[in-house]
Amino acid sequence: MPVESDVRLGSGVVIFHPELVNLYGCQIGDGTRIGSFVEIQKNALIGKNCKISSHSFICEGVEIEDEVFIGHGVKFINDLYPHATTTEGNLQGEADWKVLRTIVRARASIGTNATILPNVTIGRGAMIGAAAVVVANVPDHAIVIGVPGRVIGDARERERPR
Amino acid sequence: MPVESDVRLGSGVVIFHPELVNLYGCQIGDGTRIGSFVEIQKNALIGKNCKISSHSFICEGVEIEDEVFIGHGVKFINDLYPHATTTEGNLQGEADWKVLRTIVRARASIGTNATILPNVTIGRGAMIGAAAVVVANVPDHAIVIGVPGRVIGDARERERPR
Amino acid sequence: MPVESDVRLGSGVVIFHPELVNLYGCQIGDGTRIGSFVEIQKNALIGKNCKISSHSFICEGVEIEDEVFIGHGVKFINDLYPHATTTEGNLQGEADWKVLRTIVRARASIGTNATILPNVTIGRGAMIGAAAVVVANVPDHAIVIGVPGRVIGDARERERPR
Repeated sequence: MPVESDVRLGSGVVIFHPELVNLYGCQIGDGTRIGSFVEIQKNALIGKNCKISSHSFICEGVEIEDEVFIGHGVKFINDLYPHATTTEGNLQGEADWKVLRTIVRARASIGTNATILPNVTIGRGAMIGAAAVVVANVPDHAIVIGVPGRVIGDARERERPR
Repeated sequence: MPVESDVRLGSGVVIFHPELVNLYGCQIGDGTRIGSFVEIQKNALIGKNCKISSHSFICEGVEIEDEVFIGHGVKFINDLYPHATTTEGNLQGEADWKVLRTIVRARASIGTNATILPNVTIGRGAMIGAAAVVVANVPDHAIVIGVPGRVIGDARERERPR
Repeated sequence: MPVESDVRLGSGVVIFHPELVNLYGCQIGDGTRIGSFVEIQKNALIGKNCKISSHSFICEGVEIEDEVFIGHGVKFINDLYPHATTTEGNLQGEADWKVLRTIVRARASIGTNATILPNVTIGRGAMIGAAAVVVANVPDHAIVIGVPGRVIGDARERERPR
């Protein structure tokens, strides 16, 4: 069963196809909706009333606050130098690397296929454009696009205030 | 069952693993082949004899004509400013945003991991390169690569005429 | 059953959710671990003690040596001009195109959401950055980032020697 029993689900969480996700050891806030082909790892924290779109990957070390939109195919990262094995050639285990952290503040929106490097905070109400690669902290309400991501505007000037 | 009963399937449609897709309310033309981990949303239209590769996402508002190739991980978009919630903090519903449209003309090919912004038409026989981000209309037979996508040639000069 | 009977699995291979992968006609080396929403096609070769992360796609024509890390959402390609149909409008079959090859040498690491064009060799111990697009051969131990990917350093200077 791909929603493990150790997942802490808030009230009113909607998982459209529980047989097509892989959730384990994570916490999902009240009212959050989760699409298909989504993986959320242990110790990831998701707030209330978020939308987690299909094909996204949220790893250990990621904390997502309330009312955040995670687009289709968005992927987080928690290791800058990932390896399959140790320098001695053994399978790498949990003791062989350190989980890096990422925070996404309330009401931020992360666009389709964006990639989020670790050690960053994405500010409140920020908008990350489709296919952007976030490599540094994003100020509140900033609009970030491109590879690597750069700030090109303020989300409050592009739409109704939030 | 992740192929909902409201999907209108043409004759000879091949879905390699019906238990590993998420199709609902869409129309799929005769002879089209659909890979694994594919989501196709309601009101999406797919033509005849297309190939829809694994990990792709085709949203409401997208119309794909006949004989189109959709590469692995290709993702469409129908909202330029997506949000999880309304400005009042309620879960966003269908009345809170407008579906934007995308058209892919016959015999176009969209490369692996490409991201297609909405409000565009991709022309007949056009080729979108791997990982390209399409942000504007693509002329017939144009080759587009890069982020953001730009025209670099004519597909008819790179291969046998189609 | 999405792990076909023609898959040659080494000893100690771990597939975390066999019902959420699509493996057919491929060879997986001893001790390799495979995440969810992974597709590995026929004639793909995967070495020993690799880590194949969720949402990755490994196609026919790809050979991955031992101790390689394949990040989340990584996608390989085996056709530069993919099409759904032939010039005559018939569904394209195996006789209508030629599989291009890609080699990933031992101990290389390929970052999240990277896209790997075919006809390349990624060298031993090389590191491909998140969301990079690899379009040319990568020397041993090179660090490659960007779109298109370019060499920016030597992995041996960024971490403990491997």
